Amino acid sequence: MPVGGVVELDLKAVNGVRIGTSKAGIRQAEREDLTVFELSSTSRVAATFTNNKFCAAPVSLAKNNLAETTPRYLLINSGNANAGLGDLGLLAAEQCCEGLAKLAQVPLTAVLPFSTGVIGEPLPVDKLISGLPSAFDNLAEDNWVGAANAIMTTDTCPKGCSKTFELDGATITITGIAKGSGMIRPDMATMLSYIATDMPISQALLSKMLLRAVDVSFNSITVDGDTSTNDAVVLIATAALDVDELQSSDDPRYNDFFKNLCEVCCYLAEAIVRDGEGATKLINIQVEQAASISDAKEVAYTVAHSPLVKTAFFAEDPNWGRILSAVGRAQIESLNVAEISIYLDQTCIVEAGKRSESYTEEQGQQVMGKEEITVRICLAQGEHKASVLSCDLSYDYVKINAEYRS
Amino acid sequence: MPVGGVVELDLKAVNGVRIGTSKAGIRQAEREDLTVFELSSTSRVAATFTNNKFCAAPVSLAKNNLAETTPRYLLINSGNANAGLGDLGLLAAEQCCEGLAKLAQVPLTAVLPFSTGVIGEPLPVDKLISGLPSAFDNLAEDNWVGAANAIMTTDTCPKGCSKTFELDGATITITGIAKGSGMIRPDMATMLSYIATDMPISQALLSKMLLRAVDVSFNSITVDGDTSTNDAVVLIATAALDVDELQSSDDPRYNDFFKNLCEVCCYLAEAIVRDGEGATKLINIQVEQAASISDAKEVAYTVAHSPLVKTAFFAEDPNWGRILSAVGRAQIESLNVAEISIYLDQTCIVEAGKRSESYTEEQGQQVMGKEEITVRICLAQGEHKASVLSCDLSYDYVKINAEYRS
Repeated sequence: MPVGGVVELDLKAVNGVRIGTSKAGIRQAEREDLTVFELSSTSRVAATFTNNKFCAAPVSLAKNNLAETTPRYLLINSGNANAGLGDLGLLAAEQCCEGLAKLAQVPLTAVLPFSTGVIGEPLPVDKLISGLPSAFDNLAEDNWVGAANAIMTTDTCPKGCSKTFELDGATITITGIAKGSGMIRPDMATMLSYIATDMPISQALLSKMLLRAVDVSFNSITVDGDTSTNDAVVLIATAALDVDELQSSDDPRYNDFFKNLCEVCCYLAEAIVRDGEGATKLINIQVEQAASISDAKEVAYTVAHSPLVKTAFFAEDPNWGRILSAVGRAQIESLNVAEISIYLDQTCIVEAGKRSESYTEEQGQQVMGKEEITVRICLAQGEHKASVLSCDLSYDYVKINAEYRS
Repeated sequence: MPVGGVVELDLKAVNGVRIGTSKAGIRQAEREDLTVFELSSTSRVAATFTNNKFCAAPVSLAKNNLAETTPRYLLINSGNANAGLGDLGLLAAEQCCEGLAKLAQVPLTAVLPFSTGVIGEPLPVDKLISGLPSAFDNLAEDNWVGAANAIMTTDTCPKGCSKTFELDGATITITGIAKGSGMIRPDMATMLSYIATDMPISQALLSKMLLRAVDVSFNSITVDGDTSTNDAVVLIATAALDVDELQSSDDPRYNDFFKNLCEVCCYLAEAIVRDGEGATKLINIQVEQAASISDAKEVAYTVAHSPLVKTAFFAEDPNWGRILSAVGRAQIESLNVAEISIYLDQTCIVEAGKRSESYTEEQGQQVMGKEEITVRICLAQGEHKASVLSCDLSYDYVKINAEYRS
């Protein structure tokens, strides 16, 4: 169960997007594992993919197709990542896209493929293709929750978020879904996420907004420090709304729209960490007063990835020495340890580089008992900051990942 | 229990070194936790310490004292790291050194302090000082095994190694001990280790040899990627043997001596990984054909630290996709994924960047069932190589670190 409990999804349809799902039996016989997105012809699509050099075949093909034409379909399977298979993997991804392209009567390049699941096992192309007609037949605007379920792997709950808001007299909708639980350490994007809006947005601005929004959301989370081979985030603007196209960040509507988009992305990113494999705590690590943003990120990620810090949170043990030790080994140019302060929520645990005189073990224990904890690290070096959402390391993380393929 | 089982220690005395231990009750009432090394007046001492910027008070003081004079005593306590306490920590370390200096009638600077254990709790100076006379009274040459036991924290077994060998007609002895099990990711040295020889060696050469030997041993291991605040390795040459002093690497005796020293260091480093917290497997990660040594190390450490790779080893699951994915996210300039090969022992699992055609799951399973496994990663980029010793991530790692202070 995710930290904070399971939230019932209420996802609003986005005009111009229809979604179908089916059971292709890719890894398990009786679960929805195939998802098809159909995008209206007016849609624009931006996408960002994993930086893992061993990127999966569908990532390579999706990048290629995206460069060729504007996508009309997204084809997503869970249960198999189609990664680490060389040319055979690429052929498999092409065959699947071709299957959908024939059904939908569009060029192969108008289909973007996405796969998530076990790495290195051949994609069962025949099963996937046999599952396509059923998904195609049930394409519907109100099927976002179905898709949020069908794209899951080790996730314990589907993840989604909708926002509707007024902008210059029009009602805008943004709806997004995401999957991800382990192998989460975004290096540009992470896991899979699909976000759509009915707002008309120019291609150039859509691409820019996606990268900016991903930077503060999916690019600021970690579960286990492992970057997946299959990460992708897709942002779709269907232009179904009859309002002027958003073309520039100078447009007076831009800030409001972007704020709402970021909120959807941050909600989804946080949902992934809450459902991090074995997670019992949501840890928000905020680094302030750094000499640069990269320094702030380096310190935040070093603390976030420390197995000793993570197990201390799992144990609800205010072992602040482990946080301090992780800060001390971060790879940054200079660190004046005598000026560092560290807070657990509002409790100052380290002051001037040493245990705070006002700190008591009871105070630490009280914060550690919570499900959601903020660690604030003030470096006293400059004005830059960064934050990373993370979780603890529990028995269940080991259990889930030790038993994943058995 | 360490991987491969507990080895009975048979440690030879080194003329010029006497060791005493006692029960100071620093953290637990009934265990030896205080160790005193007495070094003969002809001894030379080299030491190397943690690069963690939050280095502990004893590390700062030991560095200072070492710069002042040649040490005559080492004072080591387990149970408390005396770290993260600012000036109070430094004062505590000084008081302890002063206690021993008075007993031994040497200047305070002739005592090097070392502490290991919980970070951030005040060192119980009074208890430590009351334990000194008893340790001082039982100083003896044959007490290396006692010291190997007294310096342990979460270690499940004492670690030590002795070598005697003939060199130019003389019989040389090198004996070393080490402690360490968690918070192991050397960034120059790691954990605590004390190594002594009766060979006369010049100060300059002793320092050089220590750094070189540490680089291939303690600097090439990892348990959990966390660098401790208290790491130190000390190399002592007592000059008790009546042979010419070793002064240069051009001395015909140098290579043989250095080889034996490295073997002692590597044995101790490996013993630490074998006793890694919760370890059930010893994993030797060898990266070959890299463009540089730093590339090779980056790839080796990225694989060694991946929680997904570590849990797969724990589960004896030949999930080679996780190894490949970790290689793909290593922060190196260029990686030609289409040329990479990966071997589990002699079994080729990845060839030309994809699953080897000859590979079967049974072969992978057979290797994974072993207690000691070599992962060989060939990058096809150049001629450099590096290897890192690591272990798996088990339930017990979480258990040990979740319960450490309770």
